[in-house]
Amino acid sequence: MREITIAIDAMGGDHGPHVTVKAALNYLKRDPDANIVLVGLRQVLEAELNARHGKPGRRLRIHPASEVVKMDDPLAIALRAKKDSSMRVMAELVKRGEADAGVSAGNTGALMAVSRFVLKTLPGIDRPAIATTIPAQKGPTYVLDLGANVDCTAEHLEQFAIMGSALAAAVEHNERPKVGLLNIGEEDIKGNEVVKQAGELLKASALNFIGNVEGNDIYTGDVDVVVCDGFVGNVALKTSEGLAKFVAGELRAQFKRNLFTRFTGLVALPVIRAFKKRVDPRRYNGASLLGLNGVVIKSHGSADAFAFEQAISRAVEEVRGGLLRRITDLVGTYHNGEAALAEASEGGTT
Amino acid sequence: MREITIAIDAMGGDHGPHVTVKAALNYLKRDPDANIVLVGLRQVLEAELNARHGKPGRRLRIHPASEVVKMDDPLAIALRAKKDSSMRVMAELVKRGEADAGVSAGNTGALMAVSRFVLKTLPGIDRPAIATTIPAQKGPTYVLDLGANVDCTAEHLEQFAIMGSALAAAVEHNERPKVGLLNIGEEDIKGNEVVKQAGELLKASALNFIGNVEGNDIYTGDVDVVVCDGFVGNVALKTSEGLAKFVAGELRAQFKRNLFTRFTGLVALPVIRAFKKRVDPRRYNGASLLGLNGVVIKSHGSADAFAFEQAISRAVEEVRGGLLRRITDLVGTYHNGEAALAEASEGGTT
Repeated sequence: MREITIAIDAMGGDHGPHVTVKAALNYLKRDPDANIVLVGLRQVLEAELNARHGKPGRRLRIHPASEVVKMDDPLAIALRAKKDSSMRVMAELVKRGEADAGVSAGNTGALMAVSRFVLKTLPGIDRPAIATTIPAQKGPTYVLDLGANVDCTAEHLEQFAIMGSALAAAVEHNERPKVGLLNIGEEDIKGNEVVKQAGELLKASALNFIGNVEGNDIYTGDVDVVVCDGFVGNVALKTSEGLAKFVAGELRAQFKRNLFTRFTGLVALPVIRAFKKRVDPRRYNGASLLGLNGVVIKSHGSADAFAFEQAISRAVEEVRGGLLRRITDLVGTYHNGEAALAEASEGGTT
Repeated sequence: MREITIAIDAMGGDHGPHVTVKAALNYLKRDPDANIVLVGLRQVLEAELNARHGKPGRRLRIHPASEVVKMDDPLAIALRAKKDSSMRVMAELVKRGEADAGVSAGNTGALMAVSRFVLKTLPGIDRPAIATTIPAQKGPTYVLDLGANVDCTAEHLEQFAIMGSALAAAVEHNERPKVGLLNIGEEDIKGNEVVKQAGELLKASALNFIGNVEGNDIYTGDVDVVVCDGFVGNVALKTSEGLAKFVAGELRAQFKRNLFTRFTGLVALPVIRAFKKRVDPRRYNGASLLGLNGVVIKSHGSADAFAFEQAISRAVEEVRGGLLRRITDLVGTYHNGEAALAEASEGGTT
């Protein structure tokens, strides 16, 4: 297999190098064809590597960056003031082809802005989007956008569908992923104007568009890619996080009610653990910044080493699956389709 | 306590009289100050009552209606063709003051259209909204709109906030419910234009507005009323339903994996049952059609008798809590506030 190099913003996230370096070392152990570049303050990274009995070499390099984008830095600071930040240098390594992909647990808005500034968007893509996988009954569902774009046109939603299809194809090896448009169920209303128009565009596209889906379909797995604007997607994701936390808390409280229920909890522990493992959000860590001319993965800010390792793994999968080429190819089909449609309609009127 | 009369669309929902009549009989047993009018096909209702050893009397009357709005009837049929439907007659009983509130498990779109046509909206309310309670860590959260309005202005969202506040006050006896505006967390984007404007309006209002909240806050109970447009609210609700079903399915699957886990499941049964009871969606059945000049409750179409009884109970609570007067009063304050603001700004410019 071709060797792949991943650049990591080693300073990003709530825990910085403490998590990113450990995750990098763990990932290198399980993937002999991957190399990692740790980007950040050289001394800090060397110390962290030392503490973990790791050392720089051919497969694990340190690339210095003198600044760090903080989680609460305003966008302008991240973008203009900190030109030698680990986040920015990571993106530049991807830009120059010294790395095949970048991973950061830093602030989402800053990461998107910096990545977009450095990498630019792919031809035919107006706006990058954020996508993530959500565990569902029959395998993961890809949902986008999750917050990069709050006011979208129908054309933007169509581009999200293209990028989501390319992503599912690249990572899941599913060449014709089923695409659904997130809508609401009232027959007589059926969504707002933008969603209706996007539905028409998608029907005419080359994608495997299955029509409207509703919020609950995200969790069945009957659809592979769910497309929505960033406001709706963000609310769906956060609402899910809130409900999951609430349910886990209630379950815990019931097992802790009295001596008998505590005993029950002990007996049920292996089952509860298996259940937790199955729905562990850490396993799904790593959101894709799609539409950029480069693969960039955003890890959850509070990710631990296990979760951050999944984000690295996601970056590698996207590169190996040929994500960028797939997006470009699909955009090409789409533009050819548009041209054909336009030609046909011109032909019809003359 | 003053006697209250509830009109029930006894033919509505997936199960019709089989569920509605049983629920009515059960509700009457627990609330001696309530009367119920069953609206529908007289013979069918008499037969159902007979089968359940109930009979019409002072507290339980049958009011005839010769037609039934089916779950899949187009809006035009429900609204114009079936003028003697159980749904429409129920609304007319409320309109004429023969009932204090109406309950139906029929099609949401039809119920909203028929109720709005018959009852009209309250002064100062442009569009009715649908609200429901969602179980949260510290007591229920009221969320609206859930699908009646997909394209909203900032003023609409403000009206939803007013109606949601009145509802929480009427049902929870919480005179200053905390109102949050559903938004997304990205600092640099912070929601679309409509939500931003609505935030400004709410800041200037007399409501107990706590600012922006995110999807996960629905489940903490730190906010009493969550305001959003109908598209976003519907997605949040349906996504929650999907996740709850997925989690329940996964938990069940883990307990059924082998003999040991099955045994574990038996031991844990009381705890699992207590947990289920705590988060049982049937307990929260009954969405409020807010902003109409009359109290109307929409039950889930697939509700069983227990769930439908909760919807009846919700109707009674709204009447006893003076919901309509509360909305009218709050709208009044708001218009006075608007007038005062306008006056002040005029004073400033002259």
